[in-house]
Amino acid sequence: MIDLHLIGTGTGNPDHLTRAAIAAMNAADLILLPRKGDEKSDLIDVRRALCAEVLTGQTQVIAFDLPDRDPDTPYRDAVDQWHDAIADAWAAQIAAHLPNGGRLALLVWGDPSLYDSTLRIADRLRAGGMAMTVTVVPGITSLQALTAAHAIPLNDVAAPVLITTGRRLREAGWPDGVDTLAVMLDGKCAFDTLDPAGVTIWWGAYLGMAYEELASGPLATVGPRIVADRAALRARHGWIMDIYLLRRTPAGA
Amino acid sequence: MIDLHLIGTGTGNPDHLTRAAIAAMNAADLILLPRKGDEKSDLIDVRRALCAEVLTGQTQVIAFDLPDRDPDTPYRDAVDQWHDAIADAWAAQIAAHLPNGGRLALLVWGDPSLYDSTLRIADRLRAGGMAMTVTVVPGITSLQALTAAHAIPLNDVAAPVLITTGRRLREAGWPDGVDTLAVMLDGKCAFDTLDPAGVTIWWGAYLGMAYEELASGPLATVGPRIVADRAALRARHGWIMDIYLLRRTPAGA
Repeated sequence: MIDLHLIGTGTGNPDHLTRAAIAAMNAADLILLPRKGDEKSDLIDVRRALCAEVLTGQTQVIAFDLPDRDPDTPYRDAVDQWHDAIADAWAAQIAAHLPNGGRLALLVWGDPSLYDSTLRIADRLRAGGMAMTVTVVPGITSLQALTAAHAIPLNDVAAPVLITTGRRLREAGWPDGVDTLAVMLDGKCAFDTLDPAGVTIWWGAYLGMAYEELASGPLATVGPRIVADRAALRARHGWIMDIYLLRRTPAGA
Repeated sequence: MIDLHLIGTGTGNPDHLTRAAIAAMNAADLILLPRKGDEKSDLIDVRRALCAEVLTGQTQVIAFDLPDRDPDTPYRDAVDQWHDAIADAWAAQIAAHLPNGGRLALLVWGDPSLYDSTLRIADRLRAGGMAMTVTVVPGITSLQALTAAHAIPLNDVAAPVLITTGRRLREAGWPDGVDTLAVMLDGKCAFDTLDPAGVTIWWGAYLGMAYEELASGPLATVGPRIVADRAALRARHGWIMDIYLLRRTPAGA
């Protein structure tokens, strides 16, 4: 039996770790750290640093190579195949390092509930016949790190908020019925496709890390600056993870 | 000068506290604990327990009475007047206990960004002329506690999620373009007004507390049970805080 703990660790700042996350890391027999290729090597370094900071016992920490998503397959199919391949990679690590079962932990960027695949990969292993319990330890998301860094509320009073992706925003535009959008997984600055009139943006990259970057203001003036800064930052660090909040003046306000 | 720290403390479980939250609590000169009347006295007890658990130094902890929202005034006006009254209450406590300035902390249920008024109250004090810096320490929200307790993702793959209120859901029904709704601030089981066909609900009350309650399943069968359980729990504890996620089968799936 594998007791899998999916541990939300926040966005790389060890001070985001909760007491529950630290306890779950220390209670694990094995922590698996995915290695995503050279571009995002900073991320595995951050996870190694979290382990070094809080582990006090006998927990084994093993890095493994994460398969790549096929960029040439249509998105949904590519994601399905990629999750299958990751499930195989987990199974191989479990067979090698926990052959008699035990407590396995994965460190999840942000929170395991939000645009993360680890719960779905665990489902694949259980569907394939692996005896496994799954426990989730919540963590601080990049969305919370963003609003905290800007010291702003996510929502207007009693108003809704849509959490969406750059792809959706680019394809469908600003959806009806909601004046605040939190946009994740946007590699291409989809805000650039909107009419900026009356829209404010709050943006953050590398949130919680030493080289965190923030920008905010009217989309009309700040948007183009973010596009340029983002390209420069990506070139400098070799990768970028960012998120933003858009708020428009409500109709009739 | 007041250095205000709004500290997200999660939903009452001390293991939700981050290292940053614990550090900020200990670095405060004064922690103000709002007292909301007898009904919710459990909540101030939980906050006192958090303080007892992690404070190691000289931080002063003071409880103060929070004004009530007028139930007979229209909602938006009532909220505005209520926030003004809370700002006055904070100012009185600051004058009494930090007359020469210092570091003030408020413990915020969940995260200060999500359906919380403390940032707006701080804005009122600054607009009224108080010299104040504001720092936000993110915390685990009830939404994350809900998805973690059920071990479910918040979003479908690459799909959006709307965070909304019971009032909105009741007034406007299920909004277009989104198949997952996270519903907060719902005192009246607004899910009961929806066509339940194809909808699954994941519900939680008192999340993170010793008497946490969970339910999930098809809305058609589980919804009515939640309505009944919720009334019984509210009667037993004198108050209830709950949240739920609704997901419908996407059109065409």
